[in-house]
Amino acid sequence: MSTKLQYGKVSAMSGHAAFEAITKVIELAQKKEIDATVTGPINKESINLAGHHYSGHTEIYAHYTNTEDYTMMLAHENLRVVHVSTHVSLKEACQRVRKDRVLKVIKLAWEACRKIGIADPRIGVAGLNPHAGESGMFGREEIDEIIPAIEEAKALNINADGPIPPDSLFSKAKGGLYDIVVAMYHDQGHIPLKVVGFNWNEQKQKWDSISGVNITLGLPIIRSSVDHGTAFGKAGKGTASELSLVHAIEYAVKMTRN
Amino acid sequence: MSTKLQYGKVSAMSGHAAFEAITKVIELAQKKEIDATVTGPINKESINLAGHHYSGHTEIYAHYTNTEDYTMMLAHENLRVVHVSTHVSLKEACQRVRKDRVLKVIKLAWEACRKIGIADPRIGVAGLNPHAGESGMFGREEIDEIIPAIEEAKALNINADGPIPPDSLFSKAKGGLYDIVVAMYHDQGHIPLKVVGFNWNEQKQKWDSISGVNITLGLPIIRSSVDHGTAFGKAGKGTASELSLVHAIEYAVKMTRN
Repeated sequence: MSTKLQYGKVSAMSGHAAFEAITKVIELAQKKEIDATVTGPINKESINLAGHHYSGHTEIYAHYTNTEDYTMMLAHENLRVVHVSTHVSLKEACQRVRKDRVLKVIKLAWEACRKIGIADPRIGVAGLNPHAGESGMFGREEIDEIIPAIEEAKALNINADGPIPPDSLFSKAKGGLYDIVVAMYHDQGHIPLKVVGFNWNEQKQKWDSISGVNITLGLPIIRSSVDHGTAFGKAGKGTASELSLVHAIEYAVKMTRN
Repeated sequence: MSTKLQYGKVSAMSGHAAFEAITKVIELAQKKEIDATVTGPINKESINLAGHHYSGHTEIYAHYTNTEDYTMMLAHENLRVVHVSTHVSLKEACQRVRKDRVLKVIKLAWEACRKIGIADPRIGVAGLNPHAGESGMFGREEIDEIIPAIEEAKALNINADGPIPPDSLFSKAKGGLYDIVVAMYHDQGHIPLKVVGFNWNEQKQKWDSISGVNITLGLPIIRSSVDHGTAFGKAGKGTASELSLVHAIEYAVKMTRN
């Protein structure tokens, strides 16, 4: 029994099985034998135990498709967010707000919206600092990096607006003013998405629903994913919610059709 | 007619009138002739034109009550957030995450909850970095500053939990797991509050409702405030919402009673 693959446990064997499955779907998508790929959560410790040193699905996809410029998009209903940086410290994230990268991410956001059928995407670009810097009083990244990127995007006929004070931008996007938001760092985008998509049930001490979708932009193939972790504690109990996976599949289908 | 005070315009005269009113209510509250004070929005340009060089109400209150340690609390329904820093650049906000300040803000959060009748406040302390630093991989502020502050708070019998990944903390607090959140910077707290409290109406191209409350913690007197700006464009049109002001008054009454 020691060789049986066990779900809900960290192991080199489950890491190896997961890695084989991922690289196989990437291969099939690149050969165009399948139209899109959808991933569940992955346990980073398991894939590392199996000798595959990646920090997650996204990095595996980037490596096997030779992709340099990619970004994480999160979506919940009509709220969509792409990120200038993700898994780095907040100090480092401030450093990464550079005109070239911001412009690249604006372009990726534009392409993503076009792929799901939006003809002229309205893109809301966040500031980095409180009040979008208040004319330089609270930081200069808006003036030195973000505004020049927005101007260049506009010159390319991309409907980009900003920099917008981060604390009102997401309410406006949720209300329908923008089709997609360019967030300057991980939590600027993740906090509002999860506040609307994740519902904590205090009586049951668990999530009632987790319904975001995670899409990797910039790849030559389509990849959507659930927006939650492995939750090994739920394995075999029948208490997990399928909602995020259903939404991820629906998003992949939508991107395939356009 | 040139001396008539006009609403909805930036002017030294309206700035002077506002300043006189504020300092008068502070004086009355300090003499205990009134139990609490509630403020509307203020135009910073007007008070500066009138020769009063403050960046807002909060700084005027702090100055006239000789208060050094204060912080901004935002509240919407059961979601309450206090901030380690507010109106500084994000880079500077990272620098201000220091054990002493975090501990002070945890204590202010605890006192604020006690004042509104919560016997043993459950305090959720946010991390600064994505995933609360992921054991130091994405920044060390959690390890070097935030965890020591939480440990010290616990030793004082304060029910403080964390550092919690910022992107799941606010959903949990909204669901009832915490009575109050300690946010590490302005937008970490402001984004989730406004996503739940501010509703944008795309058809009307305006806010349907703006319903947060802003409370200054640490003052010797009670001060609550609306959570929006002056919106001079709405003056005299009868289109402004009174919701935030009503909530601010209700909060002040609640704090007075406990």
